[in-house]
Amino acid sequence: MEIGAITAHSNAGAQLGSLQPHLFALADRELVDTTVENLAGHDVVFLALPHGASGALAAQLSDDVLVIDAGADHRLESSAAWEEFYGSDHAGTWPYGLPELPGARAELASARRIAVPGCYPTSAQLALVPGFAAGVLEPEDVVIVAASGTSGAGKALKPHLLGSEVMGGMSPYGVGGIHRHTPEMEQGFSRAAGADVTVSFTPTLAPMARGILTTATARVKPGTTAGQLRAVWEDAYASEAFVHVLPEGQWPQTKAVLGSNHAAIQLAFDERAGRVIVVAAIDNLTKGTAGGAVQSMNIALGFDEMTGLTAEGTAP
Amino acid sequence: MEIGAITAHSNAGAQLGSLQPHLFALADRELVDTTVENLAGHDVVFLALPHGASGALAAQLSDDVLVIDAGADHRLESSAAWEEFYGSDHAGTWPYGLPELPGARAELASARRIAVPGCYPTSAQLALVPGFAAGVLEPEDVVIVAASGTSGAGKALKPHLLGSEVMGGMSPYGVGGIHRHTPEMEQGFSRAAGADVTVSFTPTLAPMARGILTTATARVKPGTTAGQLRAVWEDAYASEAFVHVLPEGQWPQTKAVLGSNHAAIQLAFDERAGRVIVVAAIDNLTKGTAGGAVQSMNIALGFDEMTGLTAEGTAP
Amino acid sequence: MEIGAITAHSNAGAQLGSLQPHLFALADRELVDTTVENLAGHDVVFLALPHGASGALAAQLSDDVLVIDAGADHRLESSAAWEEFYGSDHAGTWPYGLPELPGARAELASARRIAVPGCYPTSAQLALVPGFAAGVLEPEDVVIVAASGTSGAGKALKPHLLGSEVMGGMSPYGVGGIHRHTPEMEQGFSRAAGADVTVSFTPTLAPMARGILTTATARVKPGTTAGQLRAVWEDAYASEAFVHVLPEGQWPQTKAVLGSNHAAIQLAFDERAGRVIVVAAIDNLTKGTAGGAVQSMNIALGFDEMTGLTAEGTAP
Amino acid sequence: MEIGAITAHSNAGAQLGSLQPHLFALADRELVDTTVENLAGHDVVFLALPHGASGALAAQLSDDVLVIDAGADHRLESSAAWEEFYGSDHAGTWPYGLPELPGARAELASARRIAVPGCYPTSAQLALVPGFAAGVLEPEDVVIVAASGTSGAGKALKPHLLGSEVMGGMSPYGVGGIHRHTPEMEQGFSRAAGADVTVSFTPTLAPMARGILTTATARVKPGTTAGQLRAVWEDAYASEAFVHVLPEGQWPQTKAVLGSNHAAIQLAFDERAGRVIVVAAIDNLTKGTAGGAVQSMNIALGFDEMTGLTAEGTAP
Repeated sequence: MEIGAITAHSNAGAQLGSLQPHLFALADRELVDTTVENLAGHDVVFLALPHGASGALAAQLSDDVLVIDAGADHRLESSAAWEEFYGSDHAGTWPYGLPELPGARAELASARRIAVPGCYPTSAQLALVPGFAAGVLEPEDVVIVAASGTSGAGKALKPHLLGSEVMGGMSPYGVGGIHRHTPEMEQGFSRAAGADVTVSFTPTLAPMARGILTTATARVKPGTTAGQLRAVWEDAYASEAFVHVLPEGQWPQTKAVLGSNHAAIQLAFDERAGRVIVVAAIDNLTKGTAGGAVQSMNIALGFDEMTGLTAEGTAP
Repeated sequence: MEIGAITAHSNAGAQLGSLQPHLFALADRELVDTTVENLAGHDVVFLALPHGASGALAAQLSDDVLVIDAGADHRLESSAAWEEFYGSDHAGTWPYGLPELPGARAELASARRIAVPGCYPTSAQLALVPGFAAGVLEPEDVVIVAASGTSGAGKALKPHLLGSEVMGGMSPYGVGGIHRHTPEMEQGFSRAAGADVTVSFTPTLAPMARGILTTATARVKPGTTAGQLRAVWEDAYASEAFVHVLPEGQWPQTKAVLGSNHAAIQLAFDERAGRVIVVAAIDNLTKGTAGGAVQSMNIALGFDEMTGLTAEGTAP
Repeated sequence: MEIGAITAHSNAGAQLGSLQPHLFALADRELVDTTVENLAGHDVVFLALPHGASGALAAQLSDDVLVIDAGADHRLESSAAWEEFYGSDHAGTWPYGLPELPGARAELASARRIAVPGCYPTSAQLALVPGFAAGVLEPEDVVIVAASGTSGAGKALKPHLLGSEVMGGMSPYGVGGIHRHTPEMEQGFSRAAGADVTVSFTPTLAPMARGILTTATARVKPGTTAGQLRAVWEDAYASEAFVHVLPEGQWPQTKAVLGSNHAAIQLAFDERAGRVIVVAAIDNLTKGTAGGAVQSMNIALGFDEMTGLTAEGTAP
Repeated sequence: MEIGAITAHSNAGAQLGSLQPHLFALADRELVDTTVENLAGHDVVFLALPHGASGALAAQLSDDVLVIDAGADHRLESSAAWEEFYGSDHAGTWPYGLPELPGARAELASARRIAVPGCYPTSAQLALVPGFAAGVLEPEDVVIVAASGTSGAGKALKPHLLGSEVMGGMSPYGVGGIHRHTPEMEQGFSRAAGADVTVSFTPTLAPMARGILTTATARVKPGTTAGQLRAVWEDAYASEAFVHVLPEGQWPQTKAVLGSNHAAIQLAFDERAGRVIVVAAIDNLTKGTAGGAVQSMNIALGFDEMTGLTAEGTAP
């Protein structure tokens, strides 16, 4: 693979090194405008644009080009849900770039348009889809609480994202109304369960730059044993290169996956409460979109799935 | 109030300033052994000892002395629960030092023995007890996920508490089995609800020194409106000096209560999921035990409840 | 003391609690515009305004009112230095609000205008002035490297101050040219030394919200012993309530002074290099301006110097 | 390259994944004792052992084996300096694994024993050696202040390294006496300058897991211009793959090099003080030993110097 045009909006004209000083190999590359002209001639195009913009732009790109959208425009199947949560016309649904979901690879293999999920839906679906697909979870009272690093909010200049505000403290955000990622989680769970699943989702902001720790709990269907539960998750990910059900007793930590495309998962059956607790850790910027995008590209182009994604986590 | 003996175990003989360098006014004070002799002659004794030790020591102190236990020994009413979760004989139950609970102040006013709750049960009960007391919450599928600063684990020299391990990442802990604080939460909720409440509780470790952010969710009884819910919490804390239901749209952040005895609370009704989400922020070391201990002392001695507790949070 | 008008610029009209959620006691107070009318009728006025603005506003306030300026306008004695570093007309020099400097209290006692130093000059002067005043330091090759928490930059919405950028890393800033605080340090050192002192100053940004750790080193005059050096600093601060030369072997840490008006100092004589290393820790927001402002007010009004400043550090 | 035996001391017998959970590809590998038997049969052996231990072990390994010592035993040329700072017999001097030093590559090319420098000497020498080699710096009053992440102290279970103690604050350490790394820096500077250089070095502990930001300042020889200074550093590193003199105005930040073998450098000439300030950022665990060890191995074995070291920094 060769990196072609690197585009931007307000930063067009700048050198990449002045904005992303860690990319020494690309430091001298100049950012160009995000236009159809500048994107022309590439075999693969990655888009990370505001809602609405990616749909419009992608429509102008050739059907032969593999377009991978890191934005939300093409993730939801339900136009109604899109309109409710995003308040605009639905741009249509693309194959969903979370390869570890049941049936996803077959759909991605022939795709030239892929919608990669964001960080919350990625971690939440990796956590609970095995249980729904295996029919061991009830569809109600699913509760997900996630702690995200502040890079999840991008580089927006908002007071609550200043270092002085976030270091040393935690806070929730986007509660009250329903977070936009909730219908995407519900879509994934419902598809796996073959029934409507409802989710209560609370995202929180943790004092760290990267990483998501998702705690997902659901009621377990009566008669299911702890051993059966464990087998469901271990079987689901037994042959996955990036998703790891940890040995019993070892719990995921976001630092172990930082900078890598790995996801670490552990589960416990709280028999008193009749609920399973599944904890998933990913790097919100890697598996939680950019890495997932490369992984999806590899599948679509017939490459080995780990191509370009061999980095281990940067820990401690 | 005058600070008498300051006792320790392995650090007896050291000067306080070498261990707690922020206490300049007490820097020259020498720590003495935690013995009945050294505790004799004080009107008030605060204990913060390993499980089992505080019960034994308190039994040797005069009934006239106000003994406030920051340990777990005397918090649980159920001997069976104590034995299940702590594996030793139950030392008995003392008045519970969380003044904002219904009926607590009356019990504390005449007390000479007080068991102060820890940080997780304090924040969890402040979050949900109003709803249980008002009869608007279902007793099942209560889910609590809390993020705590690492000082909650004290100064134990464990690898996973090293700065290199915790900075920049999040991880759960004490999952799998049931956390010892779960029965204490259930006790408080059940007492308020007049029915057995079961809790699924997941504590996580956040990369910050202090503070707890507790996300508590419960199913709302059918027919309850968002306005009714809000009124329940606002009424419960309307006359409290330390517990604040924030204005609508403003969510708690742990930094706003750091170093103070305040608790900040906000709630939202997720009508799609039929669940209320209540978020509570406290300083785990202040309201989450030491400050609550002083507040309880003030009530027991007939002082103004804010005596010695006027500090505002140290933010940002 | 009673808190009168609380003024703002772009936030005028907002409630304080929405901006400073830790100030529960003042949460309902409405911010008003920073005008002479709103400031009228107060006995004491604290100003924290952009360069130039405080001079103009203070000129309109009555001479009877105690005006304490947390901005830079009135700190420098040299108009030339002001014009070189700030590029505008010099507003004049006020008594300097660092009471621990030699002779400062006498000047402050009768003052109705006080210029409080910022965080870097406060810590640097506390670190080295005793040595210059005692004549044991050479005036050349003074090197100061300071690490500051990000709150030192205020709430400016700049990309490099975002949490994602600052957490987990360190960087210098304001190097290259000479930092504006350099002439203020040189002024204090030169006054104490009775000779021109030149300083090389490098500020760095540390991944923490508050606190400054200043490492100051200077060449020691030949013939000075380690014991003599230690005595100089211990004598200088022997009767100070807020500045503490720590016991030998114990080094300052910013957390021990967080939220307090204290300064912690330690020194070592590196005889091989012929240099003394003095490390000073303060809270940049307390002793490093706001607390120093209150301390100066206490002196000017004849109050006990610790009035309103009894808080110990919020550690750990 | 193939990873052979992975050895340990107290952790022998454990699986690597339980100790280093980010190394998913090696998670199942069992740690074995650090014995000559277990090290036999390897072409390359990396040692990271307590002082004294590596010398003794290396002496038992065949001369054909490339032994790369990440410990201090073989870094110093002066037996007297070794004995003064480490208090034991000197094990001898090996070729020094900092390839960017003048003449280093020639020495490493034929080496079968290499002593890799630690994090402080690496960053300090990268910062100042070009100036000493070019003869533009005075040998006295060299001052170095470095801020290190806590991983520099390893996994030692010491109270001051606990997360609660380090998060949110900064402190110096190892001051007072002279830090063991000082003679190593002086050795490198003196070799480059052809004259005895004396260094005042103060290390500080920053609230971050990884990274070192080194601020190095030295007096500039009279008559040297800012342009000449800049040219010295740019020329020194013009053909280096890992050391980058940043464009003017852009300052190093540790996050840009985290997890990578890169070093970022910037300099400024403070003409008022007659001193140059050079700031260097490296990852203390990569370029600051482990990455430098691999880089040195590549040279010794005739590989491309970037083999296995292509990772860019994990930022933000």
